[in-house]
Amino acid sequence: MTAAPLRLDPDRFFPLEPSARECARALYQTVAELPILSPHGHTDPVWFADNKPFDNATEVFLAPDHYVLRMLYSQGIALEELGVAARAGGPVADPRSAWRRFAENYHLFRATPSRLWLDHVFHDVFGLRQRLCAETADDYFDRIGAALARPEFAPRAVLERFKVEFLATTEGALDALSAHDRLRATPWARRITTTFRPDDVIDPDTPDFAANLAALADLTGADVARWSGYLDALRTRRAYFRARGALATDHGPASARTANLTPARAQALLDACLSGTADAADRELFRAQMLTEMALMSVEDGMVMQLHAGSWRNHNPQLFARFGANRGADIPQALDYVSALKPLLDRFGNDSRLSLIVFTLDEAAYARELAPLAGHYPCLKLGPAWWFHDSPEGMLRYRRQITETAGFYNTTGFNDDTRALFSIPARHDVARRIDCRFLAELVSEGRLDRDEAFELAYELAYGLSFSSYRLGQCLRRTPAPRIDG
Amino acid sequence: MTAAPLRLDPDRFFPLEPSARECARALYQTVAELPILSPHGHTDPVWFADNKPFDNATEVFLAPDHYVLRMLYSQGIALEELGVAARAGGPVADPRSAWRRFAENYHLFRATPSRLWLDHVFHDVFGLRQRLCAETADDYFDRIGAALARPEFAPRAVLERFKVEFLATTEGALDALSAHDRLRATPWARRITTTFRPDDVIDPDTPDFAANLAALADLTGADVARWSGYLDALRTRRAYFRARGALATDHGPASARTANLTPARAQALLDACLSGTADAADRELFRAQMLTEMALMSVEDGMVMQLHAGSWRNHNPQLFARFGANRGADIPQALDYVSALKPLLDRFGNDSRLSLIVFTLDEAAYARELAPLAGHYPCLKLGPAWWFHDSPEGMLRYRRQITETAGFYNTTGFNDDTRALFSIPARHDVARRIDCRFLAELVSEGRLDRDEAFELAYELAYGLSFSSYRLGQCLRRTPAPRIDG
Amino acid sequence: MTAAPLRLDPDRFFPLEPSARECARALYQTVAELPILSPHGHTDPVWFADNKPFDNATEVFLAPDHYVLRMLYSQGIALEELGVAARAGGPVADPRSAWRRFAENYHLFRATPSRLWLDHVFHDVFGLRQRLCAETADDYFDRIGAALARPEFAPRAVLERFKVEFLATTEGALDALSAHDRLRATPWARRITTTFRPDDVIDPDTPDFAANLAALADLTGADVARWSGYLDALRTRRAYFRARGALATDHGPASARTANLTPARAQALLDACLSGTADAADRELFRAQMLTEMALMSVEDGMVMQLHAGSWRNHNPQLFARFGANRGADIPQALDYVSALKPLLDRFGNDSRLSLIVFTLDEAAYARELAPLAGHYPCLKLGPAWWFHDSPEGMLRYRRQITETAGFYNTTGFNDDTRALFSIPARHDVARRIDCRFLAELVSEGRLDRDEAFELAYELAYGLSFSSYRLGQCLRRTPAPRIDG
Repeated sequence: MTAAPLRLDPDRFFPLEPSARECARALYQTVAELPILSPHGHTDPVWFADNKPFDNATEVFLAPDHYVLRMLYSQGIALEELGVAARAGGPVADPRSAWRRFAENYHLFRATPSRLWLDHVFHDVFGLRQRLCAETADDYFDRIGAALARPEFAPRAVLERFKVEFLATTEGALDALSAHDRLRATPWARRITTTFRPDDVIDPDTPDFAANLAALADLTGADVARWSGYLDALRTRRAYFRARGALATDHGPASARTANLTPARAQALLDACLSGTADAADRELFRAQMLTEMALMSVEDGMVMQLHAGSWRNHNPQLFARFGANRGADIPQALDYVSALKPLLDRFGNDSRLSLIVFTLDEAAYARELAPLAGHYPCLKLGPAWWFHDSPEGMLRYRRQITETAGFYNTTGFNDDTRALFSIPARHDVARRIDCRFLAELVSEGRLDRDEAFELAYELAYGLSFSSYRLGQCLRRTPAPRIDG
Repeated sequence: MTAAPLRLDPDRFFPLEPSARECARALYQTVAELPILSPHGHTDPVWFADNKPFDNATEVFLAPDHYVLRMLYSQGIALEELGVAARAGGPVADPRSAWRRFAENYHLFRATPSRLWLDHVFHDVFGLRQRLCAETADDYFDRIGAALARPEFAPRAVLERFKVEFLATTEGALDALSAHDRLRATPWARRITTTFRPDDVIDPDTPDFAANLAALADLTGADVARWSGYLDALRTRRAYFRARGALATDHGPASARTANLTPARAQALLDACLSGTADAADRELFRAQMLTEMALMSVEDGMVMQLHAGSWRNHNPQLFARFGANRGADIPQALDYVSALKPLLDRFGNDSRLSLIVFTLDEAAYARELAPLAGHYPCLKLGPAWWFHDSPEGMLRYRRQITETAGFYNTTGFNDDTRALFSIPARHDVARRIDCRFLAELVSEGRLDRDEAFELAYELAYGLSFSSYRLGQCLRRTPAPRIDG
Repeated sequence: MTAAPLRLDPDRFFPLEPSARECARALYQTVAELPILSPHGHTDPVWFADNKPFDNATEVFLAPDHYVLRMLYSQGIALEELGVAARAGGPVADPRSAWRRFAENYHLFRATPSRLWLDHVFHDVFGLRQRLCAETADDYFDRIGAALARPEFAPRAVLERFKVEFLATTEGALDALSAHDRLRATPWARRITTTFRPDDVIDPDTPDFAANLAALADLTGADVARWSGYLDALRTRRAYFRARGALATDHGPASARTANLTPARAQALLDACLSGTADAADRELFRAQMLTEMALMSVEDGMVMQLHAGSWRNHNPQLFARFGANRGADIPQALDYVSALKPLLDRFGNDSRLSLIVFTLDEAAYARELAPLAGHYPCLKLGPAWWFHDSPEGMLRYRRQITETAGFYNTTGFNDDTRALFSIPARHDVARRIDCRFLAELVSEGRLDRDEAFELAYELAYGLSFSSYRLGQCLRRTPAPRIDG
């Protein structure tokens, strides 16, 4: 059997009708080469601080990508066969064997975004020209391994090559940020920053919550058992992150619930959470109050506040016990935003100093709740189609359900939210193409003027990310290209 | 800088593929000039009773349009800058300044239905040929102001020009209907009617509920503290509205919940609501019972019953305190219909004398609940895509999710639901074009015969509104055009 | 008036854009003539055991089709006029009169899947060439009646003609399966099987639950009042069904809730359910536990487990009292899967011996819950777009919302789920065409390679049904056609 060729359609994702396709192409040409802003992601800052080469294809493509692992696992392939070691030890496939297992099951990814991203990277970054399959597995592994050893595939070189102008990683509130400290001394200081993610110290459902607060007390010297001391400790850590370039916070609670409690009530809940006497309702209420406190601190210190709610983390207890977190067993649930966010919005909804970016996995909320909320409250913006919805269909649903009520300017532009470094340009490319397709369809249907579409293509690919994440604090804006469109 | 031209694509919203586009055009030609039926809206009857000219562009386009105000507000523009006075007074922009503020932010409305409607009115009604922007703001303001002073822009002339054959306004149950009384003596008597909206006297969550019931007692002489007297009072007010032409009632509760209580239980709830001892559950249950009572009265008196549920009114308390209602801070919520409507349907679901038209803001209910309910219960019909969904994408989602289960004949045709008089033809035009697009796509895909599409285009643009609102009581039906299709 | 012609567009449901249309055509040609696998349906096994001819059009098209009855009923047509007798007796239309009533209201079905299926059958199976309407009603009735009397329209001949390679009916756990017993002695033994549907003996909300358990005890000799005896009895009945060819079970609970209780707790609930002291929560919890028990038994005996949750059966009590079940008054509701299925998944989620096929009527769960669950858990697969969503738009929404997260290989292929024997090929044809359209659009948009689309067209039309229902136990797989595509 001959392996199939690997080709990327230069017009992929564009509309099929000729006039709309021409328009999409013209729009895309103006944004394809814009620098990448990646204000929300999960790459490892140690990669960039140390700049050591990656070792092999499995390390780069399988290990960090729970999208890939989950699909293979769903079809009965054990994680050990994919090179993922169980916590308790035991046999695990070597990288090449894991890669072969992946390759022979590559058909499972047909029409998924993983496939689109992977093919893009294989083709454009590694120069591969045959489709991945059982027959080509070893060739892929060899060529990718050889490439990774070359200096132009070292982490910083990759960022340059990908034209990543700005990249934010995400670290927990207790992180010492040593990698970021090392980066502060390099020309990358303003381009690679961290994000303050305090879930571990504000969500009492975190397994080691009390221990985390003890660590917080050690780091800050604050009396975290007192409500005011606890808030001071959080302010201290925010300042620590800000000093290392952080522009934003990130919050991933199970629900979007917020609260407005008195300090006395908050103190009582804090007591209960620390003593272990808090029940589930107490813990949720405490977390709800803490989201409002985080909004207040954002009003004070100007950090953009990102809210990713609604994923049931580690839904599969057997898998969690054996392999730990981030193995693809996080499952979204239906979510209410209208009553959940109200306490926070009652305090800060009309305050433009707050920039609250909300993401959702529950698309039923796009047109029903989130677009109406964002289309009214000055503090609120909508993050891009997220996680399972970071895909061609997912993005089209997002634009079609959001735009008519919230417009474009209450959205923030794309972010890649990824641990998979090499997929960053592929992910942004899909987003840029889909947005150009959406705009081109509007133009062709007489719903948007062509000159406006060009302005918007730049905003969606670059401008809105720049402004909504307030990147002007550390970066000069790359202007929109001249249009002769 | 030269302002961009303002153009309306004659094929806007039609499919791009040539055969479907040709079919959409052919369909649209047969409905474009049909008279407008507007059986549900919120224009001010005083306009038509007094027929005084409007004054300026801000009065016509900004003040009555919460869609426009909300979008500008969401981007941090104060309502005072848009000419909206705070209740407590204070500086407010004059109409021209407000208009400029709107004009310089016109880009915010790109790809929203507001933009489509506004451009349509600017172009077709006011003859403007440059796009609204900061540079053209004054020219717009001057030209629109000059036009409004001419007799053909007086309210009644505008209705004639727009071919509005029938228009229903909406008034509260306590309204004296004096404007409608004045209209009774004119040739407009049968063309402009009112709608009975009793929320203020049947929903105990209304702020002044007890006072409203006192007023109801004054108006009717009934003992509204007795359950039977209270129902009599409502019957009396319905008759008062019917005598002034009302054909329908309208209900905007927070939920769609209905109930079937005994008179004794209802009396106990009424007591509690009047004495202020009713808790939230009591008040909701009372409101639920009252929806069923309204259905009973509709069976008796033949008034069409409209149910618009699911909006959290005045979600922003700061804004409400400063500016009052209808400033764009109403936010939809998820809604159940299947259990909520059951008590009402248990009594009247099989009774064709009842015509219950249900609207929703929760599109997740279209295919899941509302189409199956309307595709079964004889009393039930689905109102058009409403409010945030009164838009090209919103209408397409509605047709695509409703039609296969409920068909076309369990829907009611478009209504504009607007306070913005000048936008009425633009709104109906969008609906007619989108419906023709939907039908044309069905024809081109072999899912509907072409001759049937022509019949349906007329039904969706005119016939279904005429029949489901029972307009034959006051109007002669404009027949379908001859088709040589 | 001349009746309109009845035509089937050979390219129906395909994309309109020429290159995508060509691709859809090419794909469809390779699957159009594949045998039909119907692993889930509700035809009457007596038809095939006795092979007696059908009598008339009303018996074939109206009586078994609640889709048709519900639409006519929704427009105020009494079921008696359609030939459906009330339980209490009374006048009922004869078959020809019922047919006329249907025919004169055929316009109600425009753009519904019923219309697509009916026209297909009328045209391809009965050779009719004029559209059904009042004028052609008698001609239809006469021609269809005459055809049905011919041997090639007898039930078994129809299955042959339709190339139905495998057909599963559905019987309750107490059914003696006498028709299937008779079939065992014929060449149809491996092609027509039953499905084990135990709702009546595991759901305590079933009206005659205690009586059903008494019957279960009679059939099996087990002590069904003891938890272990009750489970034994169910194992015995499963074995009885398996001995008659059953490969799968089917479950239609009101919710998807599952549980993991101790035997003692289960015994207590069983006691309460049998004594009539169980409240609604007890009954739901018992049913939840029984779903987990069914999963365990499927792990043991290898039967595929199908879960169809979320329909409120017999929502219309007046209609139910007069006519009984299956008259179109079942209404879907919003459903949670993520917490509901967790207890079952906690036990068997990682066990590939279990094949759990989940269907939904709540499309909001497609992308939010079901695709993420199926894209992770090895035991889980998604059934096709079901019931109200078994339609062109419904299937497209399904593919577009499912595929990017769950892929194709975590879905099961189409099943027709029908009582309407003659509509089976029409239903499969719609599914095959829509799937080819979906694939062709992916190819044309550069999201899928053309050779992969051909492989997938076969999988979606045949292969995935064969494998996910484990039909290799009784059938030889029809291979994919050679592609020169």
